[in-house]
Amino acid sequence: MSQGRGHGQAQSEGQGQGVKTLEGWYALHDFRTIDWNAWKALSEEDRARAKDELISLMGEWSNVGEQKQGSTAVYTCIGHKADLTFMHLRPTLAELDELENAFNKTLLAEVTIPSYSYVSVVELSTYIDANVDPETDPYIQGRLKPNLPKTQYINFYPMNKKRDGNDNWFMLPLEDRARMMRDHGMIGRKYAGRVTQVISGSVGLDDWEWGVTLFADDPVVFKHLIYEMRFDEASARYGEFGTFFVGSRLDPESLSSYLEV
Amino acid sequence: MSQGRGHGQAQSEGQGQGVKTLEGWYALHDFRTIDWNAWKALSEEDRARAKDELISLMGEWSNVGEQKQGSTAVYTCIGHKADLTFMHLRPTLAELDELENAFNKTLLAEVTIPSYSYVSVVELSTYIDANVDPETDPYIQGRLKPNLPKTQYINFYPMNKKRDGNDNWFMLPLEDRARMMRDHGMIGRKYAGRVTQVISGSVGLDDWEWGVTLFADDPVVFKHLIYEMRFDEASARYGEFGTFFVGSRLDPESLSSYLEV
Amino acid sequence: MSQGRGHGQAQSEGQGQGVKTLEGWYALHDFRTIDWNAWKALSEEDRARAKDELISLMGEWSNVGEQKQGSTAVYTCIGHKADLTFMHLRPTLAELDELENAFNKTLLAEVTIPSYSYVSVVELSTYIDANVDPETDPYIQGRLKPNLPKTQYINFYPMNKKRDGNDNWFMLPLEDRARMMRDHGMIGRKYAGRVTQVISGSVGLDDWEWGVTLFADDPVVFKHLIYEMRFDEASARYGEFGTFFVGSRLDPESLSSYLEV
Amino acid sequence: MSQGRGHGQAQSEGQGQGVKTLEGWYALHDFRTIDWNAWKALSEEDRARAKDELISLMGEWSNVGEQKQGSTAVYTCIGHKADLTFMHLRPTLAELDELENAFNKTLLAEVTIPSYSYVSVVELSTYIDANVDPETDPYIQGRLKPNLPKTQYINFYPMNKKRDGNDNWFMLPLEDRARMMRDHGMIGRKYAGRVTQVISGSVGLDDWEWGVTLFADDPVVFKHLIYEMRFDEASARYGEFGTFFVGSRLDPESLSSYLEV
Amino acid sequence: MSQGRGHGQAQSEGQGQGVKTLEGWYALHDFRTIDWNAWKALSEEDRARAKDELISLMGEWSNVGEQKQGSTAVYTCIGHKADLTFMHLRPTLAELDELENAFNKTLLAEVTIPSYSYVSVVELSTYIDANVDPETDPYIQGRLKPNLPKTQYINFYPMNKKRDGNDNWFMLPLEDRARMMRDHGMIGRKYAGRVTQVISGSVGLDDWEWGVTLFADDPVVFKHLIYEMRFDEASARYGEFGTFFVGSRLDPESLSSYLEV
Repeated sequence: MSQGRGHGQAQSEGQGQGVKTLEGWYALHDFRTIDWNAWKALSEEDRARAKDELISLMGEWSNVGEQKQGSTAVYTCIGHKADLTFMHLRPTLAELDELENAFNKTLLAEVTIPSYSYVSVVELSTYIDANVDPETDPYIQGRLKPNLPKTQYINFYPMNKKRDGNDNWFMLPLEDRARMMRDHGMIGRKYAGRVTQVISGSVGLDDWEWGVTLFADDPVVFKHLIYEMRFDEASARYGEFGTFFVGSRLDPESLSSYLEV
Repeated sequence: MSQGRGHGQAQSEGQGQGVKTLEGWYALHDFRTIDWNAWKALSEEDRARAKDELISLMGEWSNVGEQKQGSTAVYTCIGHKADLTFMHLRPTLAELDELENAFNKTLLAEVTIPSYSYVSVVELSTYIDANVDPETDPYIQGRLKPNLPKTQYINFYPMNKKRDGNDNWFMLPLEDRARMMRDHGMIGRKYAGRVTQVISGSVGLDDWEWGVTLFADDPVVFKHLIYEMRFDEASARYGEFGTFFVGSRLDPESLSSYLEV
Repeated sequence: MSQGRGHGQAQSEGQGQGVKTLEGWYALHDFRTIDWNAWKALSEEDRARAKDELISLMGEWSNVGEQKQGSTAVYTCIGHKADLTFMHLRPTLAELDELENAFNKTLLAEVTIPSYSYVSVVELSTYIDANVDPETDPYIQGRLKPNLPKTQYINFYPMNKKRDGNDNWFMLPLEDRARMMRDHGMIGRKYAGRVTQVISGSVGLDDWEWGVTLFADDPVVFKHLIYEMRFDEASARYGEFGTFFVGSRLDPESLSSYLEV
Repeated sequence: MSQGRGHGQAQSEGQGQGVKTLEGWYALHDFRTIDWNAWKALSEEDRARAKDELISLMGEWSNVGEQKQGSTAVYTCIGHKADLTFMHLRPTLAELDELENAFNKTLLAEVTIPSYSYVSVVELSTYIDANVDPETDPYIQGRLKPNLPKTQYINFYPMNKKRDGNDNWFMLPLEDRARMMRDHGMIGRKYAGRVTQVISGSVGLDDWEWGVTLFADDPVVFKHLIYEMRFDEASARYGEFGTFFVGSRLDPESLSSYLEV
Repeated sequence: MSQGRGHGQAQSEGQGQGVKTLEGWYALHDFRTIDWNAWKALSEEDRARAKDELISLMGEWSNVGEQKQGSTAVYTCIGHKADLTFMHLRPTLAELDELENAFNKTLLAEVTIPSYSYVSVVELSTYIDANVDPETDPYIQGRLKPNLPKTQYINFYPMNKKRDGNDNWFMLPLEDRARMMRDHGMIGRKYAGRVTQVISGSVGLDDWEWGVTLFADDPVVFKHLIYEMRFDEASARYGEFGTFFVGSRLDPESLSSYLEV
């Protein structure tokens, strides 16, 4: 499959009185449920082969990360919603399509069921005025093309801004939105060092307007951060939330033990 | 199955104080999920036969397009919602029924599951007064019976206009609706050359009131266009959106590689 | 199974300040999805037997219609929602239960999955004062016990009247409701000759309050009629709509070709 | 499994300014869909054994009824929602758990799929002041521990009282609720002799606040009663309704014919 | 899989004008539906082995409880939503992930389907000012790390506080929330001795904001408590409720009889 050209992180020229956004890497969150009966029904050899195949893919993904051509995180998913969480960042959407397609052809995929996914693109909004050239500024570049951290836990949820009667985010003046996002950001900053946040935009790409991915070593931080934000006007009055996924990190070793039967 | 007569793109005589619409070709968006296990379980011969059969259908659809008797686009679908996206335009609804029925009898259909579909008819609303005869005007004819472009990416979503308390599109005076649709159209024009838009009406044909299909080579344009529109009153206050599907174009060659196992 | 006595079309004595309704035949809309793999897996003989069995049932249903003991319509269903649409009208609910049960025991039923159904009873509301005896008036009798037309297309959807804050149909004075239903009816009349409408009530029988079935040879008429009505206060402010189904008529011949593999 | 002690129909001492309720027997509505393919795939002997087993269970349930230790009703379910409706009343919740568990172990259960269920407890609210001792009053005892009637048709639906903006039942003064429930009851009385109603409370037991089960020989009475009530403020403004199930009564004989293949 | 460090029950330093919360053990509610056909299809030996395996796990869980390293409760689930309810409390989320993973590898898991789950953490909110050191206070420690009681019945449901127009819990001043929670707590106290309540927070961990688990010997107490609370402003105006699950306790003996076929 040929790939669309990367769009860079160029500001859209066409954007109007809303708010300008910068885009970085595209994101695919890919959740899979293991059919444990099918997994057990494989021969021990096949199970070993399936593990090796996934670990080898994880190695490739890791190389991509080292070459700054993307980043991938692999976690479990706790509860019935899924068993495995793959979060892939890549320069183009076509690459994500290929990654999904490649996984679907693995032996492990034969014993998993796609339970959820999310398509988005890493986004920075320019509510906070930045006197820098985003195309070269290393901080902004690092935010748009992040190296996903290796924390113990991951948290993902999609969200909207409400458009309901008097609570309509998109009908507010830019100043009000900017003020609320600034306040919102202040809460986030209090958690600096304890949580890493990746915001990706999905208007036109998936069913909600944004995806939020959080990384932390202590999962109670997810709860504290999001609970505190919920009292903040931006969330309290304007936030609408989808399904929440929480997982624990898998490296080749813990993956092996997770799959051991 | 006998076919209903084409209705042409005649304006309905019966339409009242709402807004007149012009209709063109009927549309079927047909999303299919591949059962990769079943696909792998086919013999290599059968897989080759299934590919050939689909590529041959794609050739027939392409001929229909060249004869201006319809248009068909084939894309992947990124994420768990589906794997394949077929968008068919044809003069009558019966032809779409036949297309769906014909695909269901293919070998490839044996390894796919219908995951979503959408039935609609290409529509132009006459909010913007046109001093032309729509039945002969080549621009309007081209919009009603479009030749679907061959961009790298496709985007589809169904939508409603809200009827909720004070936010009730269908209770607004025609002037207000016309003004908002004009503003809405102005945003679209800024993206001319970067995105092609096909609007199809589905009141009485499917669960939402309209389907929107966008074609672009850079998928970030989908996000910029729809995000900018979301701040526009027509969407901000009156838009309700269904599921969003994004896919990457498949031609016979990329289809072969997509299906290669 | 013994049958409940037909209730005739008697007006309920118990009805209060709402609105009086007349009831006719009970209706079962029965939508089935074909499992094409299972269908293909049958031997050619079994497929022929399954077709013959259904065509023979269609013949019985047709006889029932000729004897004015009910009416049945058979259509495809376009899109993923279903493949076959059966609409049965019969004097008692028990007869519909038996029809469903009889179909479930056919060979064709072995390769279909029940995807949706709707239970209701043909209804005329007396918002419009009628100086006639409904029990003998041939026009009213014909509306309550209709012979379903053999148009090329069918359209079905269930609906409610809204009860949401200030938009509460059931809290309105009878006069307002009567006026709105009269206006609504005026739109319908403009489409006389192009569309046939069967309204069935389902309060207490199924999940929505009414079912609407439309028959037309040109499906764009469904769209024009329902779109025009949507701007009418009765729909714009008070209508809530369920899933829309559209199908193309099947007679024994087109059914055979539809099922041919 | 040991059984919790019956709570009798004692008024809760802990209940506050809401409204006092009396509770009687616990209720399990258990809906099952028949997998007709699996049923046909059984040998004729096994089908006979499965029928005998269910008919024998029906006999046991009937004995329980005669001993006033509960009551069970068996009906079909018309449409795709289910095929069989079991409504069990028993003194304790543990007994219902056992009944469900016992059915799950039958041969018939092997060819059925649980499609819906509802857990509740027969309830009388004391909106209408009663100068009687509910523990001994035979009318109240008969309402709390009813012998389910053997009408031709059954109707079941769960419901809530709305808590939405200005339409919040639970924020109303007791007097207003009492008045509305009295008016509501007056409508019900007009249908005395034609319909039997069992109200069961499910706050804390299942997803809606109440279950309503109606029994009648003429199913149009369900429609007339519920439609008339819908114009009554208690329903019009405060009622929220779940799924409606309608079925036709099965005795051993009609069950045999229903299952005959 | 390596385990995240326990976060203790430390108050979050980052929390703002919302309300401070104390966290204790993490909770996994794990609901499973038994595939009775698959269970019956096992050999008697395998069924015995599956029971022994689960009873042995229950023994391990019981030991964990005795060592104050967590607590586990095992119940049925009445109705079609599930058959088995496992509620696990453990110091870290990783331990819950491991518990789920371990169960998935058992023989019994081969015949069950995960039907629902809930991830949360036992929480105390400090609306009610406490002049104690929560880290050492034995009452608070006992509430945060509870030994789940062995009552006959369990009740679980997730819930939100509403954010809808004028009914927005998170926009209220702290004083108002504190007053309402105090009133709410007063109702709970009237049920002391008859019901045990475990509140767990799930903001950022699962789809609702809180999980409520109740334990009682008489299930009518669930109904009385929750019904009385529903008239209380905190619930009446601000409560939103998910699915309710009710189950009956399983010890090794009753489990054996529950699974006996």
